Amino acid sequence: MQEKKLPQLVKGTRDFDAAQILKRSYLFDHIRQVYQSYGFTPLETPALEYISTLLGNYGTDGEQLIFRILNSGDFLAEVTDPTAYTNYKALLPQIADKGLRYDLTVPLMRYVATHHHELVFPFKRYQIQPVWRADRPQKGRYREFYQCDADVVGTSSLLIEAEILSMVHEVLARLGITQFTIGLNHRAILNGIVTLMGEGDRVNEFCIVIDKLDKVGKEKVIQELITKGFASTALEKFSFIFDLQGSNQHKLQQLSEHLADSDLGLQGVQEIQQILRRVDAMGISDKNISIEPSLARGLSYYTGTVFEVKLQAVDIGSVAGGGRYDNFAAAFGLTEMTGVGLSFGVDRLYVAMESLGLFPQETCISTQVMVTNLDEEAEKIALSIIPQLRKNGLSVELYPEPANLKKQLSYANKKLIPFVVMIGEEEKQADQFRLKDMHTGAQTLHTQQELISFLCGA
Amino acid sequence: MQEKKLPQLVKGTRDFDAAQILKRSYLFDHIRQVYQSYGFTPLETPALEYISTLLGNYGTDGEQLIFRILNSGDFLAEVTDPTAYTNYKALLPQIADKGLRYDLTVPLMRYVATHHHELVFPFKRYQIQPVWRADRPQKGRYREFYQCDADVVGTSSLLIEAEILSMVHEVLARLGITQFTIGLNHRAILNGIVTLMGEGDRVNEFCIVIDKLDKVGKEKVIQELITKGFASTALEKFSFIFDLQGSNQHKLQQLSEHLADSDLGLQGVQEIQQILRRVDAMGISDKNISIEPSLARGLSYYTGTVFEVKLQAVDIGSVAGGGRYDNFAAAFGLTEMTGVGLSFGVDRLYVAMESLGLFPQETCISTQVMVTNLDEEAEKIALSIIPQLRKNGLSVELYPEPANLKKQLSYANKKLIPFVVMIGEEEKQADQFRLKDMHTGAQTLHTQQELISFLCGA
Repeated sequence: MQEKKLPQLVKGTRDFDAAQILKRSYLFDHIRQVYQSYGFTPLETPALEYISTLLGNYGTDGEQLIFRILNSGDFLAEVTDPTAYTNYKALLPQIADKGLRYDLTVPLMRYVATHHHELVFPFKRYQIQPVWRADRPQKGRYREFYQCDADVVGTSSLLIEAEILSMVHEVLARLGITQFTIGLNHRAILNGIVTLMGEGDRVNEFCIVIDKLDKVGKEKVIQELITKGFASTALEKFSFIFDLQGSNQHKLQQLSEHLADSDLGLQGVQEIQQILRRVDAMGISDKNISIEPSLARGLSYYTGTVFEVKLQAVDIGSVAGGGRYDNFAAAFGLTEMTGVGLSFGVDRLYVAMESLGLFPQETCISTQVMVTNLDEEAEKIALSIIPQLRKNGLSVELYPEPANLKKQLSYANKKLIPFVVMIGEEEKQADQFRLKDMHTGAQTLHTQQELISFLCGA
Repeated sequence: MQEKKLPQLVKGTRDFDAAQILKRSYLFDHIRQVYQSYGFTPLETPALEYISTLLGNYGTDGEQLIFRILNSGDFLAEVTDPTAYTNYKALLPQIADKGLRYDLTVPLMRYVATHHHELVFPFKRYQIQPVWRADRPQKGRYREFYQCDADVVGTSSLLIEAEILSMVHEVLARLGITQFTIGLNHRAILNGIVTLMGEGDRVNEFCIVIDKLDKVGKEKVIQELITKGFASTALEKFSFIFDLQGSNQHKLQQLSEHLADSDLGLQGVQEIQQILRRVDAMGISDKNISIEPSLARGLSYYTGTVFEVKLQAVDIGSVAGGGRYDNFAAAFGLTEMTGVGLSFGVDRLYVAMESLGLFPQETCISTQVMVTNLDEEAEKIALSIIPQLRKNGLSVELYPEPANLKKQLSYANKKLIPFVVMIGEEEKQADQFRLKDMHTGAQTLHTQQELISFLCGA
């Protein structure tokens, strides 16, 4: 047997213990409940997808972060071109045809493409599963993390956008988060601006740069655009977006004026107006919604609305985001199949909840009653009474060995078990049980029936 | 952009739709509740583990089934020996240092090894997560499947074995499965037998063959042992195990007689007796437990008790299994750290539940109320009333577009939505809502308040 290194957690991944799982479940459950209340039903897809499914959707940078799985057995057997050994990129497709799920949208598209004959459209699904990215691990960035997605495929109705904005409000309200901003934009507005700049074929390039506004500021964005060869006269045509002020309605009006010569841009403005009208009809104020014409959501598959949710009290980037994607489905052979989605990132939400003290002070998932194990006879008595406690829904454990009492109580103490039942000589004689409240230290004697009533009523 | 193949599900993996997820959750929830009621707390570990952690635990055959993940970036950069290109086994460790979780026991050991200073022992954890095996896909065998494990690390008390047997009873009882057999054996009994045969150093070889008894029968097992060079005189020493009859106590007595000259064998018998005594003290009859001295659980890490659970009514192999492993932890630098565990396989349990008709007839997770969308005015009314229904816990959706009524009702029908609310001209005039019971077809008119009371009371 080869010598073992001390085992380690893979860098960028995490174990979750009982306390963390309890809190994470709190987030998952609330998100799931909201998604379900809007008529979304669950879907789960496998961790593995074919590389051919994954590629072509995330841009060159994204694709480099896909974890690739070596073909089974002699993976070199199918290498047809040995010169590939000098070039890992050429070798890759010959030795690895599968990869790990990188997001939940591509698996959804694959699912819809495979099942579109039997699905009922519009298809509303939610999916809460981990995804994997071979990112350089750093604080708050993990190689395995959960996404909580809700998507609707098969309708261009802007009602869905309004409902998604409503779901964001609902999830955050249920979690107790009141201070947040949903940045909202439309790709058509960006397209309109770039077209007016006379750079209509460089929308993606423009979006990548403008998307950094939040991080690097106005000056650096302009500098980078100039470096990239955008004419400074063209830049004047969009600089108004830095100065938009006032209410959403006021911003939209200003946008309409600047985009008067762009039908596309105006369409974007109108669609946002329609969405806001519906949000209003749902009784939701737009005070947490902010039109942000610089929001692009990077180089991605979005074609319509895009949005990003940030918390005011905690500076951790966006906790949710999404938008409408029209051409995405086309890559999977689905024409005229527009999609729109929302994704919550549980890790950032977790950090925010912790820092705002919003997780409920529930006791951790743990044993509620421990029965001591002092000798064979006491163990036998314990074994006969414990099933009755468990039947009443209590979590009960019997200390597994007749160790000394101090050790057993210390175990209960460390595990924060609130009640300990002791069966010593005295108790056996009297046919009773001694109950210790580990919080107060108080000890009381009970008959079996009293004990069951007390603990199961507690 | 490269041409896309029609996307496909990776062979041996599965998507799960809402109905399947509901049923699988039913299994997970029951197993989780039982584990928790015995004082187990949850743990989750990442999908990725270092190959160095995974290797050395599953035997040669098992190790070939580990999915290996290519190192990120230029994975050829660290290939020091180019002759490795002619031998994939030599190349493997140079280009892939991570793999996918193969079971939940090795990650547990890695976790315990890393955290043993802060954990409270005995450490009782349960873990419900998928594992991956690069097996040849076939009916009922998947490359991604869930395991539901409960393990106790850090006590040699046989009480744990008794509690595990009790948990098996409890889980199956809660699921409504009454006809099952827990085959129970002890590796010391097998070791004793092989030692009496004079082949003490070939226990693993013997176990692999004898483990097939169930599948191939007595004759073939004996034949294979002879082929492998076990002397036929030696074989006489163990053939008695084929003839064991009667109650568990009777079988144990016969085993004691045959193993009279093996202290090890006798110890195994005694341990099983102690376990059965405790099971009895818990008020559980041993009618579902069967001593099976040929049960070996393959070539694996078990050193003490081993058990396997089969259902009488459904021939699908074992739905659960487990045992005690002493040396396993040692491979992770943990000496004197014995472990014992139970694992439920949800896929086989699912098949069994389906075939026995034991899943509850719950309605599928779906929308409870759909509101039709006939025109802009009706949509606005709908948007104002829907939040009140959702607040009351109902799952409600508004049809996203003003399509014709027939199409909208057909959508509701296909999605098995029980109630549809319609807001037509007549209803708008009268300030009322028309409610259609999709099951009976009955239509009734309601004021807003009546509608809310009716649906939320329903």
